[in-house]
Formats: sequence, structure tokens, C-alpha cells
Amino acid sequence: MMPMPEMKTLLQSRGKEVEAFLATCLDNRPLPPRLKESMLYSLQAGGKRLRPVLCMSCAALCGLAPEKVLPFASAIEMIHTYSLIHDDLPAMDDDDLRRGKPSNHKAFDEATAILAGDGLLTDAFVIMCRTPLAPDAVLKAVAELALAAGSSGMVGGQEWDMIYTGRPGIGLEELRSMQAMKTGALLRASCVCGALLAKADDAAVRAISDFGASLGLAFQIADDILDVVADTATLGKPAGSDATQGKNTYPSLLGLEKSRKLAREQAENARAALAAFTGVEADFLRALADYTVNRAA
Amino acid sequence: MMPMPEMKTLLQSRGKEVEAFLATCLDNRPLPPRLKESMLYSLQAGGKRLRPVLCMSCAALCGLAPEKVLPFASAIEMIHTYSLIHDDLPAMDDDDLRRGKPSNHKAFDEATAILAGDGLLTDAFVIMCRTPLAPDAVLKAVAELALAAGSSGMVGGQEWDMIYTGRPGIGLEELRSMQAMKTGALLRASCVCGALLAKADDAAVRAISDFGASLGLAFQIADDILDVVADTATLGKPAGSDATQGKNTYPSLLGLEKSRKLAREQAENARAALAAFTGVEADFLRALADYTVNRAA
Repeated sequence: MMPMPEMKTLLQSRGKEVEAFLATCLDNRPLPPRLKESMLYSLQAGGKRLRPVLCMSCAALCGLAPEKVLPFASAIEMIHTYSLIHDDLPAMDDDDLRRGKPSNHKAFDEATAILAGDGLLTDAFVIMCRTPLAPDAVLKAVAELALAAGSSGMVGGQEWDMIYTGRPGIGLEELRSMQAMKTGALLRASCVCGALLAKADDAAVRAISDFGASLGLAFQIADDILDVVADTATLGKPAGSDATQGKNTYPSLLGLEKSRKLAREQAENARAALAAFTGVEADFLRALADYTVNRAA
Repeated sequence: MMPMPEMKTLLQSRGKEVEAFLATCLDNRPLPPRLKESMLYSLQAGGKRLRPVLCMSCAALCGLAPEKVLPFASAIEMIHTYSLIHDDLPAMDDDDLRRGKPSNHKAFDEATAILAGDGLLTDAFVIMCRTPLAPDAVLKAVAELALAAGSSGMVGGQEWDMIYTGRPGIGLEELRSMQAMKTGALLRASCVCGALLAKADDAAVRAISDFGASLGLAFQIADDILDVVADTATLGKPAGSDATQGKNTYPSLLGLEKSRKLAREQAENARAALAAFTGVEADFLRALADYTVNRAA
């Protein structure tokens, strides 16, 4: 067992390493100043840096020093950030606020926001490919990440979300499948890539994949619940925006109580997937699974 | 010397191989039907498939069978296609017509067009990473391609283009630099990746890089000229749209005659860069350089 304060300290210190990397990831490259400013604006808007921390910690769980995957892990945050910028666009969710600040297209303009997203996504692949580890492991990890982020993963999930929004009455299976693509795939792949980069054996990769899938689901249900129960200041975006936008969520389909129960079950599944692992990294990841459903924002 | 009809036959037959690959590249993957339709709509809108043909032919020039890089090369066309979809968006060039058909956001909707672009870009990396050649060579090629497509390449060039549009009086150096990023980088990288995948030596990679850079510039100048002199039916988009949109182009800065001369010079530079190569592939690439400045559309 890792106590919650200790878990939070490690989460924050790894998050800070990621932020330090992200602050310099565009240096020494000839890109238009306005585009750079726009990319950094969203990269530096804060957040828990959960995906890169998962990648680093799963690498560490499999015996690879987490620093070795810091650039790769940070590149996953670049991909996550691009997805937020594009999701906020007027043609998509049309959100003016993100993490308490104007969303990218509000702070800059729509064209620059589209290009900042495109740039973050593409540049992430440059950074991932340059990971100084065994080329076959790196290649496998990059392919895994791209698959999770692409049309049969995150991008496809956003398309389903656009199709479902404002159409109440979709079933739990559609909701689960949409969210597994939209947020679950990248969270799971963040974990799996850590294991792949560490050249973990198949059984370990499978266990870590199961952990990531359950954690992703727990995280998303908790996110849906927070949108209902937290206030705007805590969320950094308008509270209740899911309901306003006509989004299908776990609380809208199941109610709050059943949603909370489901989130706890998934966190439990995530813990159970790591049963074969011992040591501080395993304890950290198990505590992180609990934290995803108990966090306040 | 390869006669022009023979060059065109090889260009077309390689282009057809690319189209056959692209027609099935999304099969057996669980993506939303509307997103798949939108991605295929733009992928199958035609075009010369110049970038993948360059990649295949440069691989062949360096001794690797062009079929070996067909998926990788086709993925470059996916990236080119994504860039056209995003460039046409209302917030960017706001073009309703592309290759004689409604542009993607007109045929579908803006959200789907943004996501189709995001999906094509990301999925291209899945395909590239799965190239069954030596992992170190594949990794180098993927990094090269991503660098060319990202914020210091194609995406950055589009940002400069947005900034310059409607502002007459930019200098030739700004125009050259913008276009080298916007269209030159991906054309050059298409050539270089063929060489890298074939594990060509440094001197060959450099020569092929020079060839690609000159060809890219020749191609872009020719494109600017065609926008002035060709008609809408031939172009598949409104003729004269550069002038209407207030784009800075070679003809707008230098006039038609000087632009034609510069294009011919660059084609000559491209031919010269391949001086050390003999055989049918070298002849094909040299003829292709001439074709880029003499084409009618």
C-alpha cells in the first residue's frame, strides 16, 4: 500500500519532469513564432500529466528507468493536448474555456488553433521516433500509440461523440464503446508503451494493458461525475457543460450512485490487473487507480 | 533519357498501385462509418500521387524493390490528403472545391472534416511504423517524415501562408521559405524516405535530398503559374484563386516569364542532383523533374 500523500508527491514530481521537457520541446526549431506561442499556450496550461506519468511508471514497473522514456511520455501529452485543442473548436464542442483559461482558438484564432493541434500531433511523432532505445521496441510503441490516437481510437471516439451528442437514449454499450475509443485508448496505450519500451514480456504487457483499460474507464466515469458535482472554479471549465451540450454520460444514463459504484469497480479491476507486480512502482500505480475515482478535479 | 510518354506510363502505373493500397487501407478497422467515408472521399479524389511515386522511385533508385515501400509511400499520400482537407476549411483557405468535387467539409461537415484530417495523419503513422524492413531504417524514415510534416515543415508553412495572405509585398526570400516549408518539405522527405528505407549511404541520401528540394521548388512555382494560366475545369478548383485570395505567389512577385525561367532552372538543378545515378529509375526521376514544370494541371 502507498499512502495517498506519497502517491500525490510522486505524481507531481513526475508531472513536473514532463512539464520541464514540454517547456523546451519546441526550442531550436524554425517554426512561426505565433504557432509556437499557440502550441506552448496549450501545452503549458497545466493538468495532471496523467498519461506521461502512466507511461513512465509502467516503464519503471518493467525495470526501465523512467527518465529513459521521458521524451516519449511527454510526446503523449502533446497528442493529448492537440486533441483538447481540436475538441474545443467551434465546429466541435465549441468550448470557450479550458483549464480556467480561454481555449486555444479564443486566445489565438481558429486557423492557428487547428494548426497548433496538427503541429503538436505531428511533432510528437518526431520526438517519439528519436527515443534512444532499441529501434524495434520504439517502433512497436510508436505504432501502438498511433493506433490508439487514430481513427479507430481517439479520433473515431470523438466522431462518435459528435454523432451521439444531443441524441439522448443511446445505450450503455454505445457509451462504453465511444469512451473506450475517445479517452480509454490513449490512456491504455500510455501504459502499454511504457511496457513495450522496457521490452516487457507478453504476459506483463497484457496485464498492463488490462490495468490501463480499467483505469481509463474509471477515469472517464469519474470525469463524467465531476462534471455534475464539481463547481466551475474547481473544474476550470463550466460545470454541468455535459448536460448543457446534450452529452451522453454515465450519470445521465445510470444516475450518480450507480456511476460511482461502476467507477469504484473499475478502479478495483485496475488494481487487480497488477496483482503479479510488487514494489514501489506497482504500489504507486495501484494508488493512482484509487486516486482517479476519488479526485476532486 | 526517358521519353515523356514512357515516363507518364510509369508514373501512372505506380500511382495506380498507390490507389489500390489506399482503397483498402482502412479495412478491418473499427472506425465510425461516416468518418471512414469522409477519409476515403478525399483519399480517392484522384491526383497524381506524386509524393508516394517519388518515395517508391527513390527506394528503387537505391536498389530496394518499390513494392517494399508501397504502404509507407501510400501513407505519405494520406498525410498530403489530410493537409488538403485542413487547408480547405472555412477558418483556413475556405475552399469549396477540390479536384473538381466539393471539398471535404462541404461534402460532409466541418467537424467530420477536421477529424478525417486528424485520422488520416495519425493512421499514416500506424502504416509507416508497420513497414516490414529493418527497424532502424524505418524509424529514421518515420522521424524524417514527421519532421517534414510538422510545425517546422508543412504545418509551419501553412501558418506562414495564413499570416502572409492578403498582405502584398512580402519578399522573394519569405515566399521561398514559406513554400519550402509548406510544400517543399514533404516532397523532399518523400524522396529521402525512399533512400533511407533502402539504407542508402549518406552521399546518396544527400543527392536525393537535393533532388527533392529542387523538384519541390519547381513543382510549387509551376503550381503558382498554373493557377494563373489554366482554366477551372483543368485545375479542378477555381482558376485564379490565388489572386482572389490575395496569396503571394511567384507570378505575383516576379511575373510569369521570370517564374517560368526559375521553374526550369530548378528542374535542371533536380536533374543535376542525380548526375551520379544511372539506369531506368534515374532516367524516370529526371524525366519527372521536367514533367513537373511542363504539366498542364
